[in-house]
Amino acid sequence: MTYSDIRIDPAIMQIIRFALAEDIGREDVTTAACISEKSYSRAQYLAKQHAVIAGLSIVEAVLHEVDSNIVFSARITDGDEVSPGEAFAFAHGQSRSLLTAERVSLNFLTRLSGIATQTRACVRAIENTHAQIIDTRKTTPGLRVLEKYAVRAGGGKNHRFGLDDGILIKDNHIIACGGVAPAIRKARAHAHHLLAIEVECDTLEQVREALPEHPAAILLDNMSIEQLREGVAIIRAHDERIRIEASGSMGVNPEKLYAVAETGVDFISIGALTHSAPHCDISLDFLLTEV
Amino acid sequence: MTYSDIRIDPAIMQIIRFALAEDIGREDVTTAACISEKSYSRAQYLAKQHAVIAGLSIVEAVLHEVDSNIVFSARITDGDEVSPGEAFAFAHGQSRSLLTAERVSLNFLTRLSGIATQTRACVRAIENTHAQIIDTRKTTPGLRVLEKYAVRAGGGKNHRFGLDDGILIKDNHIIACGGVAPAIRKARAHAHHLLAIEVECDTLEQVREALPEHPAAILLDNMSIEQLREGVAIIRAHDERIRIEASGSMGVNPEKLYAVAETGVDFISIGALTHSAPHCDISLDFLLTEV
Amino acid sequence: MTYSDIRIDPAIMQIIRFALAEDIGREDVTTAACISEKSYSRAQYLAKQHAVIAGLSIVEAVLHEVDSNIVFSARITDGDEVSPGEAFAFAHGQSRSLLTAERVSLNFLTRLSGIATQTRACVRAIENTHAQIIDTRKTTPGLRVLEKYAVRAGGGKNHRFGLDDGILIKDNHIIACGGVAPAIRKARAHAHHLLAIEVECDTLEQVREALPEHPAAILLDNMSIEQLREGVAIIRAHDERIRIEASGSMGVNPEKLYAVAETGVDFISIGALTHSAPHCDISLDFLLTEV
Amino acid sequence: MTYSDIRIDPAIMQIIRFALAEDIGREDVTTAACISEKSYSRAQYLAKQHAVIAGLSIVEAVLHEVDSNIVFSARITDGDEVSPGEAFAFAHGQSRSLLTAERVSLNFLTRLSGIATQTRACVRAIENTHAQIIDTRKTTPGLRVLEKYAVRAGGGKNHRFGLDDGILIKDNHIIACGGVAPAIRKARAHAHHLLAIEVECDTLEQVREALPEHPAAILLDNMSIEQLREGVAIIRAHDERIRIEASGSMGVNPEKLYAVAETGVDFISIGALTHSAPHCDISLDFLLTEV
Amino acid sequence: MTYSDIRIDPAIMQIIRFALAEDIGREDVTTAACISEKSYSRAQYLAKQHAVIAGLSIVEAVLHEVDSNIVFSARITDGDEVSPGEAFAFAHGQSRSLLTAERVSLNFLTRLSGIATQTRACVRAIENTHAQIIDTRKTTPGLRVLEKYAVRAGGGKNHRFGLDDGILIKDNHIIACGGVAPAIRKARAHAHHLLAIEVECDTLEQVREALPEHPAAILLDNMSIEQLREGVAIIRAHDERIRIEASGSMGVNPEKLYAVAETGVDFISIGALTHSAPHCDISLDFLLTEV
Amino acid sequence: MTYSDIRIDPAIMQIIRFALAEDIGREDVTTAACISEKSYSRAQYLAKQHAVIAGLSIVEAVLHEVDSNIVFSARITDGDEVSPGEAFAFAHGQSRSLLTAERVSLNFLTRLSGIATQTRACVRAIENTHAQIIDTRKTTPGLRVLEKYAVRAGGGKNHRFGLDDGILIKDNHIIACGGVAPAIRKARAHAHHLLAIEVECDTLEQVREALPEHPAAILLDNMSIEQLREGVAIIRAHDERIRIEASGSMGVNPEKLYAVAETGVDFISIGALTHSAPHCDISLDFLLTEV
Repeated sequence: MTYSDIRIDPAIMQIIRFALAEDIGREDVTTAACISEKSYSRAQYLAKQHAVIAGLSIVEAVLHEVDSNIVFSARITDGDEVSPGEAFAFAHGQSRSLLTAERVSLNFLTRLSGIATQTRACVRAIENTHAQIIDTRKTTPGLRVLEKYAVRAGGGKNHRFGLDDGILIKDNHIIACGGVAPAIRKARAHAHHLLAIEVECDTLEQVREALPEHPAAILLDNMSIEQLREGVAIIRAHDERIRIEASGSMGVNPEKLYAVAETGVDFISIGALTHSAPHCDISLDFLLTEV
Repeated sequence: MTYSDIRIDPAIMQIIRFALAEDIGREDVTTAACISEKSYSRAQYLAKQHAVIAGLSIVEAVLHEVDSNIVFSARITDGDEVSPGEAFAFAHGQSRSLLTAERVSLNFLTRLSGIATQTRACVRAIENTHAQIIDTRKTTPGLRVLEKYAVRAGGGKNHRFGLDDGILIKDNHIIACGGVAPAIRKARAHAHHLLAIEVECDTLEQVREALPEHPAAILLDNMSIEQLREGVAIIRAHDERIRIEASGSMGVNPEKLYAVAETGVDFISIGALTHSAPHCDISLDFLLTEV
Repeated sequence: MTYSDIRIDPAIMQIIRFALAEDIGREDVTTAACISEKSYSRAQYLAKQHAVIAGLSIVEAVLHEVDSNIVFSARITDGDEVSPGEAFAFAHGQSRSLLTAERVSLNFLTRLSGIATQTRACVRAIENTHAQIIDTRKTTPGLRVLEKYAVRAGGGKNHRFGLDDGILIKDNHIIACGGVAPAIRKARAHAHHLLAIEVECDTLEQVREALPEHPAAILLDNMSIEQLREGVAIIRAHDERIRIEASGSMGVNPEKLYAVAETGVDFISIGALTHSAPHCDISLDFLLTEV
Repeated sequence: MTYSDIRIDPAIMQIIRFALAEDIGREDVTTAACISEKSYSRAQYLAKQHAVIAGLSIVEAVLHEVDSNIVFSARITDGDEVSPGEAFAFAHGQSRSLLTAERVSLNFLTRLSGIATQTRACVRAIENTHAQIIDTRKTTPGLRVLEKYAVRAGGGKNHRFGLDDGILIKDNHIIACGGVAPAIRKARAHAHHLLAIEVECDTLEQVREALPEHPAAILLDNMSIEQLREGVAIIRAHDERIRIEASGSMGVNPEKLYAVAETGVDFISIGALTHSAPHCDISLDFLLTEV
Repeated sequence: MTYSDIRIDPAIMQIIRFALAEDIGREDVTTAACISEKSYSRAQYLAKQHAVIAGLSIVEAVLHEVDSNIVFSARITDGDEVSPGEAFAFAHGQSRSLLTAERVSLNFLTRLSGIATQTRACVRAIENTHAQIIDTRKTTPGLRVLEKYAVRAGGGKNHRFGLDDGILIKDNHIIACGGVAPAIRKARAHAHHLLAIEVECDTLEQVREALPEHPAAILLDNMSIEQLREGVAIIRAHDERIRIEASGSMGVNPEKLYAVAETGVDFISIGALTHSAPHCDISLDFLLTEV
Repeated sequence: MTYSDIRIDPAIMQIIRFALAEDIGREDVTTAACISEKSYSRAQYLAKQHAVIAGLSIVEAVLHEVDSNIVFSARITDGDEVSPGEAFAFAHGQSRSLLTAERVSLNFLTRLSGIATQTRACVRAIENTHAQIIDTRKTTPGLRVLEKYAVRAGGGKNHRFGLDDGILIKDNHIIACGGVAPAIRKARAHAHHLLAIEVECDTLEQVREALPEHPAAILLDNMSIEQLREGVAIIRAHDERIRIEASGSMGVNPEKLYAVAETGVDFISIGALTHSAPHCDISLDFLLTEV
C-alpha cells in the first residue's frame, strides 16, 4: 500500500463529534439507567464477512471522544483483509462508554470498509494493466474526506477533492460556455497557474477540438471500448503527457473494467466506489464484563 | 402516504451548508473561469432508472443556499415514483449557480431516493400483512434525520431516532447488566415515565424472563420463522398490548420479509434500508443557456 | 440518593464557556492590573445559610476552564446539606485565576444549590407518601440540563427533558386538535413506538374520555384535592398501570403538597422548583495569599 | 422610563436559538403528531398576577425564529404594568408553530418580568431620594444581557456589564494585592485611561486609605446605616465628584432600602434583583383555532 | 480589468461579523448614550490621497450587517482610481448605525485600497512587458481571500490560494526531501493529477536538475538579473510551456521590477503587495443629520 | 518593559485556528507528497533586519496547534531587539509539521514585530518627555487583540479596546448630537459609572465648551503645535486631572512626535502604528533534517 493512515485533524474530529451528538442526543438513557458506572467490559470488533478494513483510527477516535480512558488495539492496519469470524480489533473500558460509542463506531467502520472492499475488487480486476482506479465527487454529503481515504485504503487513487483544487470542464460547462476550446482558453486565462485543466469529452470530435488547447488531461465519458481505444490513440499521437481518464457505465463489473483498462487509459473513475458500496457486516461483541 | 414533507429546519440547513462547503471549498474555479455571470440556464433532473424520489425540498434548499434567485419546480412530490427517462424537476437561474450546486444537489437526491426506493420494495413485499417496515440506527453518520425521512417517503415507519428518545435494552446491555429482568427494572426506576422500554431477546427463554417486567415492546433478534411464531404466541398470550419487533438477517429479500411478517410481528426493522441502499441514477441536464 | 453525579460533557462545557465569556469579555482588567502573576492564593466556598449543595463539579469545571492548574477539593458531594458558616470546598491556585473565575463559579453554585434546597424541602414534605416530586420544562433558558440535575441532587425526579423525548398532550393541543381522544389516537399513529403518551386533563370528563385510549399517563391539572382523589379512583379502577401526575397551584407549600400526595397520585410536578427558587447565599473567601 | 427597548442583535439571537434547540431537540413530537399543518390559532399572553412586563421583543423574536409568519402584537411596551387577568399581547399563526414556541417564549417572559417587577418595587421604595437602584454581576449564567435589560425596564440602572468594562477592586483583590492604595495605583498605571476605578471598602479605615488615590467611585460594603452616613460624609468632604455605592444585606426590603438611600449614597446595588426574583405567572391561552 | 467583483459568500460574512464583534463588543456605548434613535444622517467616504479603491462591496456588507436599512451607493467600482478630496461613496441611514459601523468599514476599505494601490503601481511599472504581477501567501492571517481580491482589483493576478490547491516545492522541502528531482517525482506520484507542480530553484544547478522531471512551473528565487536571464534561456530551450516565476528582494521598486520583467519571466511574485502596503487615507464624514 | 506576555486564551486560539485553516485548507499537499512521516528537522527563526520582536508565544501556539510534539525555544522574549542575521528562536519536530506551520507562524510574527518595531521608534522619539504613545482602533479586522499587544511589546500603551469599554465622543457624534456639551451630558446620564468620558475637540472653542462638563479626557485632534500648547494650558488651568490626548497627521515622524510631546499632552495616539507598519523580514530556515 502506498497510502498513509488518515490523520485525525480538526475537520475529522468535527465529523466524529457531529455523528456522536446525532446519535446520543442528550444522553444514552438506556445505558445510564441499566449499567453501573463501576462496570468495565472487554469487547471485540468481529468481521462477519470477508472485508478490506478501513477506518480503524476513526473507530479509535470515536471511542476516545466518548471516553479517553478506553484502550483500543487492532491486530491489523487499514487496508488489510479479514475473514468471516475474525476478531480484528479490541476495546476495553467502562461498559457505559463502550455501549454509548458502539453504534457510531460501527456506522463509520462498516461504511468505510464497504468502500475499501469494493475498491479493492476493482483494483484487482485491472491489476495487470497500466490503469489506475480513481474516485469521483459522488460521495456522501459530509463524509468525503473519509470516503476518499477509504478508496486509498482499498488501493485506489483519488481524483481532485472538490471544486477548488482542480479544473474539470464538464458537459454542462461546455454547453454553457459554447464549446470545448473556448472553455479551456478561459480556464487557462483566469485560474492560477498551479491548477491543471481536464476536459470531459463525450465524442472524438470534442477530443480533436480539445487537443490544440493543451489540456493536462482528457476525460472520455460514456464511450464504447472501440471509441476509448481510438480516443487513446488520437491523444497519445498528439502529446504523450496528457493523462486520460475513462468514466461511464461500467460500474464495478470486473470484465468491463478490464476491457476499459486495456484500452490504455491512465485512470478509470467509478462513482459506485462511494455512492453504492454495500456496508460490511461487522459487529461489536462484549466478551466479558467486570463490576 | 401518511408522512409529511420534511421541514427544512436549522439542523438540516447546517447539513446542507456543510456539504456545500465540503464540495466548493473556496470557489468553483472551473465555473468562475469558464462561465459568464450573464449566462442563465434551464436544467432538468432526469431519472435514469425506476425510482421512488425523496429529497426534492433538500434539492431546492441546496439550490437556494447557493443562489436564492434560482427558480425550482417539481412535477411530483416526495414518495412518488418515476420512470427511466422521466424529467421530474426543473431549475432555472444563473448558469454559474446551477453548475456549482449540481453535484451536491444530486448527491443528496440520489442517496435519499435510493433509500426510499429500497424501502418501498420492502413495504410492498409485506403489504397484505399486519406488519410495518421500520428503520434502525445503522444510518450514515451525519445524515440520520434525512435518511429517516427517506424511509418515511418510501412508506416505512421510523424506530426511535437515537439513544435519548427511547429505551432499547440490547444484547450487550444485558451482558453488562446481568440479565433481562434486572435491566428492565433499572430502566423503569431511573428513566422518566414517558420513555417506553423495549428489550432485545435472542431466545424464547429471554422472552419469558422479560414478560413479568411488562416491557412496552420486545425485539426478537435473529430468530427463525418458527421461533418468531412461537415468540409472538407467548407474548400475545401474556399481554396483547406489547409491541413485537423482528430483526435479523432477512435483509431486503421479499420472500423472507413476507415470511417474517406472517408470523404476526408488529414491526420488521431493517438496517439495509439505510446502510446498503444503492443510490438512484439521476442526472442534471442543461437544456438551454442564454447569455 | 439514587442520582449520579453530573457528567461534564461537551454540551455542559459549552454552557460554562459561554458564561465565562459573558462575564470576562476580553479580559478581567482589574485583576490583570492589580494582581501579580506570581501571587497564589487559597480560598474557600463558605455557606452563609443552610443549603443542599448542587454543582460542585460545575464549579470545578469553571475553575479548570479558567486555569487547569487550580486544585479544587470538596468535603462533601452534591446533595449533601451544609450549615451556615460551613466551609465545604476549597480552591488553591494563581490568585489571578481564582479572582477571574470567582463570580461565574458562584453564579452556577448558588443557583443550582437554590434549586436543590427548594426541591429537598418539597421531597421532605411528602416523604411518607407514595408520590414523587418531579420537575417541569419551566427552566431557565439555556440551563435546563443543569437545573434538572439540581432537582435530582435535591431528591426529586425528572419529567421528560424537552419536546422530543416524550409525548405530553396539553390543553392547547387538545383545543387545536379537537378533543382528548383524537389527540391520543393521532399521537399513537404517528410517533415511534418507544415514546409513551401522557395527556393533560382539566376535568374528570376529560379523564373519562382519555381512558379508553390507553394513555401511559394522565396529568390532572389544577384540580382540587377532592377532584384529584376522584380522578385517581377512576383511573386506578380502569388500569392500575397508568401513571398519574398532579400539577397546579400548590407551589412549594408543604401542607398542600402533602395533601396532594395523599390522594394517591404518582407524581407531583412543580414549576417553582426551577423558576422561582431563591439562590443560596454562598461566598468565596480568600484565606491566604503568597507571592 | 429612560431606557430604550432592547435591540435584538446576533448575541441575543444566539441565546434564543440555544433556548429553542434545548427545548425542541429534534422535533416537537406531540405537536407534529397531533396537530394538522393546516390548523391556525389565535392565542393571548395573559397575566395571572400584577407584574411589570419585560421581554416583549424577546417573545416576538422567539415566535419569529420558530415561524416568521406568526403575527405578534402587544397592547403595552416593556416597563408597563399589567393587572391579574389582563391579556396584554397576542399571537396568530400556524397552530404547530405557536405550540412549539409556547414554553420558551414564556420562560423568557416570566423570568424577565419577574426581575422587572422586583426592580420596580425597589425603585419605588426610594423614589423620593437621590439614590438609584443598580444591579450586579450576580446574574443567571448566559442571560446577563437580558437580565440587565429587565432591570432597566423595571426602572433600575446598570452597573458595569462584566470584568472588562470597568475596574472594581474588591475584597479579594485587596487581600491578594496587599492594600487599597497599591491596588488603586496599579489599576491606574496599567488600565487604559477610559476605565474608571471603583474600590470596595468594608471599613471607614479603608475609605480613608482610598481617598488620596482619587478613585472615581467607592463601594461601601456591608456597612450599618451609621457607618454609611459617616462614610458619605468623609467622602463628600474630600471630593464631591466621587460616586458612592452601597451594597450588602438589605435585600429587597423597602424600609431598609429607604434607610440606606437616605444616607446620601448615589447607588444601591442589589444582587437579589437578578438572582432571586420569583418569576411572574403568565400563561399563553389559545383562543380559537381554525382548520 | 478582467477581475470580477468579489462575491460576498458565507466565508466573507464570517470575517465581517468577526470584525464587527471585535470592535463593538457588547454595545457602542457612546452612540447608544449620545445619539437619538430618531436621528438619521448622510455621510460620504472621502479620499484624502490618490488611491485605487478596493472593497466597496465589503463596506456595503459591513453597513448592512449593522443595519439592513442603510442605503449605500458608490460613484465608482473597485479598481477605479480616486483623487484627493474626492467623495466616491455615500451612506444614508440611522445615525446610530452609521456611527457604529464607521470604523470597521474604514478599516477594511483603507487596507484593501492600500493593497490595490500598491499593486497598481507595480503593474504599471511592467506594463509593456510580457510579465504579470502575482501575490504570495504572505497575507494577513484571516484576510487572505480579501487581500487576494484587492490584488486583482489593483490589476495583479493571484498565485495559488493556500497549501491545498497547488504544489509548490520550496527550499525547506528540498532540504527535507533530499533534492529537487526526488521531490518532484514524489509529488507527481502522490498528488492527484489536476494539481500542477512548481519547484523553487535558488541556483541554475537546481534548474537543470528539475527540468528532466517536467515541472509545470519553476520559481527562480533571489536571483540576479543575469541569473534570471540565463535561467529563462535554459528553461525555454528545454520546454516552451514551463511557466517561470521570479521572486526575491526587488520589493516594489519600479526600476527593479522592470528589469526583472525584461528577463522574460512569466510572473513576478511580490510579498510586499500584501504584507507591507500602507493603508490609504480615507475618512467617513457626516454631511447632515436630521432628527 | 511593564507589559505582560500575552495569554493564549480561547479567543486567540480561535484566531490561530482560523489562520491555519485558511492557509492549509484540506491538506498541505506538497508536504504530504514529498516529505516522509519519519523525517524530523531543526529550524531557526532568523532576523533579516533590525527588529523589535513580538509574537513568540503566538508562534509557539501555531506550532503546537499543528503538532503538539514540536519543541520550541526562544533566546529572547517579546519586546527584545534583534540584529540582522540573528537567529532568535528554534523549533524541532516532524519535518511535515514544521513545513505546514511555517508560513502562518511567520505571517503572525513578521506583522506583530513590524508593529512593535514601529512603536518602539515612536516611543524612543519622545522618551524624555511626559507623553506616552498610544494606539487607536485603526487595526486589522480580526487581529486587534494581537496588534494592541504588539504595541505594548513595542513600549506603547493601549487606548480603549473597542466601542464598549470607554466613551469617546468623536466629531460625527457631535454633529449628530448637536454639540459637545449635550453629548457629554447624555453620555454621563446613560452609561454606567465606571466608563470614563473623553471628547474629541477640533477647536479651542470646543475645548472651552467641554470643560464645564468635566470630561475625564479631551482629545485634541489635528491641531497645530501652537493650538496644542494653548489647549493644554486652557485645560490644565481648569482641572489638572483631565487627561489630554493629541492625534492627527504627525504620522510616525520623530521630530513631529517630539514637538507634539513637548506641548505637555499626556498621550499621542497614532493610527499608523497598526495600519501602516511594514512587516519585519524574518525567515524560517531548516538547519538539518534526520530521517
